[in-house]
Amino acid sequence: MKKKLKVRAGKESRPIGVFDSGLGGLTVVREIRRLLPSESIIYFGDIARLPYGIKSKEQILSFSIQNTLFLLKHKIKALVVACNSSSSAAYSFLKSHFNLPVVDVIGPAASAAAELTQSGRIAVIATQSTIASRAYEKTLKRLKSSAKIFQSACPLFVPLVEEGWVDGKITEDIVRVYLEPLKRYRADTLILGCTHYPLLKNIIQRNLDAKVQLVDSALPTAQKLASILEKNELCYHSSRRGKLKIFVSDLPRNFVRIGERFLGEKLNDVKVVREI
Amino acid sequence: MKKKLKVRAGKESRPIGVFDSGLGGLTVVREIRRLLPSESIIYFGDIARLPYGIKSKEQILSFSIQNTLFLLKHKIKALVVACNSSSSAAYSFLKSHFNLPVVDVIGPAASAAAELTQSGRIAVIATQSTIASRAYEKTLKRLKSSAKIFQSACPLFVPLVEEGWVDGKITEDIVRVYLEPLKRYRADTLILGCTHYPLLKNIIQRNLDAKVQLVDSALPTAQKLASILEKNELCYHSSRRGKLKIFVSDLPRNFVRIGERFLGEKLNDVKVVREI
Repeated sequence: MKKKLKVRAGKESRPIGVFDSGLGGLTVVREIRRLLPSESIIYFGDIARLPYGIKSKEQILSFSIQNTLFLLKHKIKALVVACNSSSSAAYSFLKSHFNLPVVDVIGPAASAAAELTQSGRIAVIATQSTIASRAYEKTLKRLKSSAKIFQSACPLFVPLVEEGWVDGKITEDIVRVYLEPLKRYRADTLILGCTHYPLLKNIIQRNLDAKVQLVDSALPTAQKLASILEKNELCYHSSRRGKLKIFVSDLPRNFVRIGERFLGEKLNDVKVVREI
Repeated sequence: MKKKLKVRAGKESRPIGVFDSGLGGLTVVREIRRLLPSESIIYFGDIARLPYGIKSKEQILSFSIQNTLFLLKHKIKALVVACNSSSSAAYSFLKSHFNLPVVDVIGPAASAAAELTQSGRIAVIATQSTIASRAYEKTLKRLKSSAKIFQSACPLFVPLVEEGWVDGKITEDIVRVYLEPLKRYRADTLILGCTHYPLLKNIIQRNLDAKVQLVDSALPTAQKLASILEKNELCYHSSRRGKLKIFVSDLPRNFVRIGERFLGEKLNDVKVVREI
């Protein structure tokens, strides 16, 4: 068994499956493609049923299972739950019930924050469902029991990013309203607990003390995936760049443009699947 | 046949079915309950899959058919499509394929605007999908071929209402950005083409010339429903107030509070249906 796995090391060309409620998870794909350029990726964005962030835990779990089953049809070798709402509602379930390595976005971001903080005061901003789940709080407490955690929901950030208002006075005013209670808390580390938020990174940083360190899930998640693939001898090394196939449950106008903003490269291969 | 219908006139106690992608359609229910207080209503809010406004026509049509089938199980006597996105994507289909009176929100609002306008210059604000469908434009042109129509999407209005930011400086700034091109157009009538927008009525009116008349779908739709029930001898008269049953495909936190804001009364009877 060990020998067989060794032979396959670096040659496991099956794709990595990634899903999100929409296109925000492409910020995670962007980092995976930087870190693991020869890996192929199948991405599923559940645009027909987005946003997940305002829905109940049961509903998000049910959607997440369906998304996983869809990706499994494409013979994925590992799964990345690139959505904070799904990570909080479904990660444990997916990890225990499906027979493949599963990486979420909450664990890696929480680990990165726990390592970075000096004062132990960590703030988390995310969608309503992620905050209500207290997933970051629980994970951070497990990693660093002395940590003090402040949580706050920012429901307008996702629509602002989707409208393309990632800068300007109105966005700055909204950011200021949402960051106000958090500033009073004097955290030294802020987790951007939603895959849309990295696009507001500059404006958020500008409105905080310069010493506050921002952590988003994208890079820590890609790093976690790399180490899990390595550990399970599931890597694929090649001189050719891996393929990226995007499936979406709906494809409204402008979504390709928004997707390219998240991904940082052209979206060439996008297919709509109506029934998943 | 005629005699039979006559006997039933005023005694047709079956409920009216109303659906929307979420709870915005309760602004229409509110007017129906004012105008037709003894009628019972079954409302379905497809919260698990909202918002419809950013999705494709095919997707919205498919959701709308499912919602109609769900309401038909409850033996409704008439159907109100209390969602602009569904009205634009699905009204014609539902009207021709289902055997009951169907009322949308676009026709009644367009008729009201066509009657009100003096200059013939009508503006419409709505979600992206309603604007892209050009449903208001086509309907207005049919009603008043000389009309000049200006259309504009306001994607942040729905999340602002759902966040409860229906007043204040930031909302005023956002309203001003979206109304700017419309003011230059010098319309004398503005259609609020989304069932969430009536909650922003004051702030919108404040930022327009006082002569601009605002039209929302709620009252004209309730009036259209009343006349269709009358014509089909499907009314129910009683001294008792009709029942209101609310079904939703998901029930996240805060949604009852938001729903009560739309409905203007307590939401007592809310049931979650996971599979529709």
